[in-house]
Amino acid sequence: MSRRIDANAAAARLREAESILILTHRRPDGDTVGSAAALCRGLRQMGKQAFVFPNEDITPRLGFLLEGLWAEPGFVPGLICAVDIADTTLLTDGAKGFAGRVDLCLDHHPSNVGYARELALEEHAAAAGEVVWAVLRALDASFDLPIWEALYIAVSTDTGCFKFSNTTPLAHRIAADAIEAGVDFHAHNHVFFEAKSKNRFLIEKAMFDKMIFSADGQIACSWLDRPWLDAIGATDDDLDNLSTLTMALEGVACGIILTQNKKDPDYKVSVRTHKPADASRICQGFGGGGHPRAAGCTLSGPPEEAAKRLMAAAAAEIAAC
Amino acid sequence: MSRRIDANAAAARLREAESILILTHRRPDGDTVGSAAALCRGLRQMGKQAFVFPNEDITPRLGFLLEGLWAEPGFVPGLICAVDIADTTLLTDGAKGFAGRVDLCLDHHPSNVGYARELALEEHAAAAGEVVWAVLRALDASFDLPIWEALYIAVSTDTGCFKFSNTTPLAHRIAADAIEAGVDFHAHNHVFFEAKSKNRFLIEKAMFDKMIFSADGQIACSWLDRPWLDAIGATDDDLDNLSTLTMALEGVACGIILTQNKKDPDYKVSVRTHKPADASRICQGFGGGGHPRAAGCTLSGPPEEAAKRLMAAAAAEIAAC
Repeated sequence: MSRRIDANAAAARLREAESILILTHRRPDGDTVGSAAALCRGLRQMGKQAFVFPNEDITPRLGFLLEGLWAEPGFVPGLICAVDIADTTLLTDGAKGFAGRVDLCLDHHPSNVGYARELALEEHAAAAGEVVWAVLRALDASFDLPIWEALYIAVSTDTGCFKFSNTTPLAHRIAADAIEAGVDFHAHNHVFFEAKSKNRFLIEKAMFDKMIFSADGQIACSWLDRPWLDAIGATDDDLDNLSTLTMALEGVACGIILTQNKKDPDYKVSVRTHKPADASRICQGFGGGGHPRAAGCTLSGPPEEAAKRLMAAAAAEIAAC
Repeated sequence: MSRRIDANAAAARLREAESILILTHRRPDGDTVGSAAALCRGLRQMGKQAFVFPNEDITPRLGFLLEGLWAEPGFVPGLICAVDIADTTLLTDGAKGFAGRVDLCLDHHPSNVGYARELALEEHAAAAGEVVWAVLRALDASFDLPIWEALYIAVSTDTGCFKFSNTTPLAHRIAADAIEAGVDFHAHNHVFFEAKSKNRFLIEKAMFDKMIFSADGQIACSWLDRPWLDAIGATDDDLDNLSTLTMALEGVACGIILTQNKKDPDYKVSVRTHKPADASRICQGFGGGGHPRAAGCTLSGPPEEAAKRLMAAAAAEIAAC
């Protein structure tokens, strides 16, 4: 298990190191990338050799934050620091070799397994970006525009633009300072929270077109077949978080989305609930599991049949609450 | 024209008054209602007789903020204060009689016409709630939970949950303090930014189902017929801001929505553009007008024909840019 340390101690470790390699997680989001970029830039200000380890999953809309910060092959760091990575299973394939060698982890996931030698964990932080902000303050970094931009993206993306229940006062205060520093927050908000790709548009449309309701509108269920997804060229990004959309519908207490797998004909099932219905109880009946509000399982088709079984289980769960 | 004053002077006027009547604007939004609620509660803390003038357009999701604050008939105030009201044309029908008698206006609209005797206007504020916050501070109000709740709703709703370009550092800082004070911000965010009525869901679905694209996907156009809207019982709220949804679609530079009128068979046309295409130029060709990014006009049906004419005009505008 990691030794737990605070942001000041984490800053002290970084100050002692001459060269630092920063790791981000697979399928990188705005928090891991923004945190890495802000930390790397802050360390460079201090004259450190700081680099971010290449992440093969990086997408263009986040990649710009790390331009000029990627480590060259052969870089041998004095300290390896993971940001926003709760477990070594979340390391990218290319970074698997660092699994037993992470010196420091800056994170906000309560589920962090403690794989790093030392861990600065703020369980109530909305984003790892808040921990990085605290470390940079402890390092007396000068918060320039690129650092504020990276921190803004870290806290805004992890809070759904300050909408989700995890939003903290500090996330808002970081945003306030970032805007004051001149970050073009609206351009970022458009990219992350407004713009919708054509495929995403088609997928949402198909999902709502096929949606069926039961239990007096309390259960909503829809599915997406792989041949059609392949035909339009859908990516994983296009399919991200579809099931949460069902929870916006008035009266819906349980939303269920089935998405056919790429490599076999089964359907990946994503279940979302509003309190008190328990999504994990619904999924456990099908060999799956998860959290009370968000859970998953896998079912074989045909999707109409799988939907019926899932909706029956959801109705039973709602009736039992 | 109003005499321009700052928040401190506005606070001084309110301190001098024994009894204050607060006015909100027609079709009230979170900012006018939240501002009125916060101001009214702050003034009552000081022992003032403070009330909000009844607003016949108030909806349940905002009305709770003003419970216990509504003025009784016959209340004769020493000072009349308008919040978030840029012009007397925006007074509710029931409040028209106050048009020439407003002593003080707290606002953030650059378009404020200066109808009040004195005006505390912060043109760069995201919400009138920011001005009220400054006035309450100048009054040494103790910011209790209901005041923070009202201010949170004021700043969050006027910024689209901190997404729009008008978002200010102060809006974020007010939100940070409100969350720290214990405001159940997520419950409010769900109501204002996530929840979607069944009718709204059906309307968005119908709009996207019928949507046609032209100019290589740069123009998106759809329409809604009144018999169908009547059949589902659609309200004006359900139809609010539909055209902005088109602007989220990747590649769309101009979105056009036609909604058939209630009282005649014509279609109200709403046009939205991204820079540089000019929505008002498109609408001027049909006898309408508006702003560069948002404009409107009226056309007779059939909607397919009207859509064709509008899309041709939009294509010409885009080609000319």
